[in-house]
Amino acid sequence: MKPKVLTPEECNAALTNEKYGRLGLCLSDRPYVIPMSYVFLDNKIYLHSRGNGKKVEYVTGNPNVCFQVDSLKDNRWTSIIAYGTASLSDDIETKMKMFAAFMGKEMKGHGGKQFKREDLEKMPMTIWEIRIEELTGREGIW
Amino acid sequence: MKPKVLTPEECNAALTNEKYGRLGLCLSDRPYVIPMSYVFLDNKIYLHSRGNGKKVEYVTGNPNVCFQVDSLKDNRWTSIIAYGTASLSDDIETKMKMFAAFMGKEMKGHGGKQFKREDLEKMPMTIWEIRIEELTGREGIW
Repeated sequence: MKPKVLTPEECNAALTNEKYGRLGLCLSDRPYVIPMSYVFLDNKIYLHSRGNGKKVEYVTGNPNVCFQVDSLKDNRWTSIIAYGTASLSDDIETKMKMFAAFMGKEMKGHGGKQFKREDLEKMPMTIWEIRIEELTGREGIW
Repeated sequence: MKPKVLTPEECNAALTNEKYGRLGLCLSDRPYVIPMSYVFLDNKIYLHSRGNGKKVEYVTGNPNVCFQVDSLKDNRWTSIIAYGTASLSDDIETKMKMFAAFMGKEMKGHGGKQFKREDLEKMPMTIWEIRIEELTGREGIW
């Protein structure tokens, strides 16, 4: 059966409702995929990471990202893909905005706890801001 | 908390037990991620697709793949990454072997049904065989 193409509104709703996605990066023709928690705010996707691992190396070398969010329930799948570019920062205002949004999504882990500004300032963290250039979504049956 | 590195045995067990993964591809510095059902057989990952969509265009242009399989339960995540190269075929013996393995995993959809050889021969389908070059796994808490 041919998958159904989702409307922009349906894509936005799925991005708003889901908690985890898979971040696709590539460098020198090598793809890399990692699961990450995220929030969708003001039409941008926000992620956070710690340290300088492979994903920071990759995105620094090539800012193009593909952020994929899906829901696989019974025999039905929905998959949203946001193509865009990521920029990294440690901006405290963005960090506060991101954590407030994480709280609203009832995330597990530290994303789900409330922190004061001074605690967030001390927390070593890189904020990823993904500017979406293209958003597509499809749903179908396995 | 620092993620724990999984042993090769734990990575193999996770690949054997899970049903769906995310396939990462890239072409001309553009990453692409899609959810796919799979089976893990003889140390290779098998996928199937229909038609000549974006993923076939991508893998034909660059055979490097990253196949990522995860389990996100409560606040604990496990993620396995298989790096390798994919080759496409419509070989009937491989198709039969792959469908038999899908049956064993109690997949939903047509991957979960039993087919006769003559039915499989008529079924238009591309088989993806991923030769794994590097397998890594980690688990942690969000």
